[in-house]
Amino acid sequence: MSNNTGLCAKPQRRSIGARRNPATEAAILDAAAALVAEKGARGLTMEAVAKRARAGKATLYKWWPNRGALIVAVYERAKGGYVYEEGGSLIDTVAAFYRHLFSLWARPEGGLFALIIAEAQYDADVAEALEGYRLERLAATTAVIERARARGELAPGVDSRRLAETVVAMAWMRLLTRRFDPAEADDLAHAVVGGWIAAPA
Amino acid sequence: MSNNTGLCAKPQRRSIGARRNPATEAAILDAAAALVAEKGARGLTMEAVAKRARAGKATLYKWWPNRGALIVAVYERAKGGYVYEEGGSLIDTVAAFYRHLFSLWARPEGGLFALIIAEAQYDADVAEALEGYRLERLAATTAVIERARARGELAPGVDSRRLAETVVAMAWMRLLTRRFDPAEADDLAHAVVGGWIAAPA
Repeated sequence: MSNNTGLCAKPQRRSIGARRNPATEAAILDAAAALVAEKGARGLTMEAVAKRARAGKATLYKWWPNRGALIVAVYERAKGGYVYEEGGSLIDTVAAFYRHLFSLWARPEGGLFALIIAEAQYDADVAEALEGYRLERLAATTAVIERARARGELAPGVDSRRLAETVVAMAWMRLLTRRFDPAEADDLAHAVVGGWIAAPA
Repeated sequence: MSNNTGLCAKPQRRSIGARRNPATEAAILDAAAALVAEKGARGLTMEAVAKRARAGKATLYKWWPNRGALIVAVYERAKGGYVYEEGGSLIDTVAAFYRHLFSLWARPEGGLFALIIAEAQYDADVAEALEGYRLERLAATTAVIERARARGELAPGVDSRRLAETVVAMAWMRLLTRRFDPAEADDLAHAVVGGWIAAPA
């Protein structure tokens, strides 16, 4: 690649949009997670995270535009990717999903999600980051329900996205009222989606 | 009624368990509501309310053992009693319930409920007061579903209380994500309970 002067020059790596340095990213998320563990969600400020991670605030803001985005990123890392267990009935899929969530939320790093929902009631940045995360997860859940529909498993007449929302809403209710016993997962899944299972042909 | 000395004496009004002076109660709830409107849920402290209401702290604590109980009382007063509209289908009953809640939550005094749920994630007193309120309302919703069942409206196989919880969970989800358009009430009710409506005989 040559520049205008005709000399060969290495392409300049611009910092905006550049690949994240994984070590720096990990250090920042570690620092953020530690701060949350010590001081709760409210203890997480961009300033404190930068200091703790020994990272520049500019780097932080480049990757997470605000505190809300960062706190959701901490939770997402703790959560890891989740792949729905499909292949059985939709009720089983939803029950497995609840068991996964309930186990996660029982762990200290998982409890952060309740605080994110709480903070979202006060802080527009957290609300926005939560909404982004919520919509992403809702799309995944909706796709699961659409696949169940394609297999002929659902009665007609219910919108897949709305049904997906009922699935997630029950999980949130349980999280926010601290009642997430995995032993209830089957019953909850049944109450939420069981009515929409097609009658056997 | 006479006392031990044989003299007639008016029964002494004991403060514990005595009827509340309605004017004092109203003054306290007014003060609490005003503080919440001005400073949010976090601005409500027993001290500040007592001062604002020109009531004794002892009186406050007698009637509301802690801040959590008081803040829920403020919300309950704003909400008023709600009587489910029964007589049509269960879907219609739930839809009307959602319309009522969504209208309430759109008002400033109604928005308090989201803050109560948020505060409950941090404050054990608020969590306890919220749980008491939640269980009371869940019992009312469960009763509605039981009556629908008694009328033969429900398919068998779903626990009434669990179904009631799915109804409430959707409402909470909508409140906490600031999506409570009354125009959606019918669709939401349909998604939540519609699957459990018995097929026509």
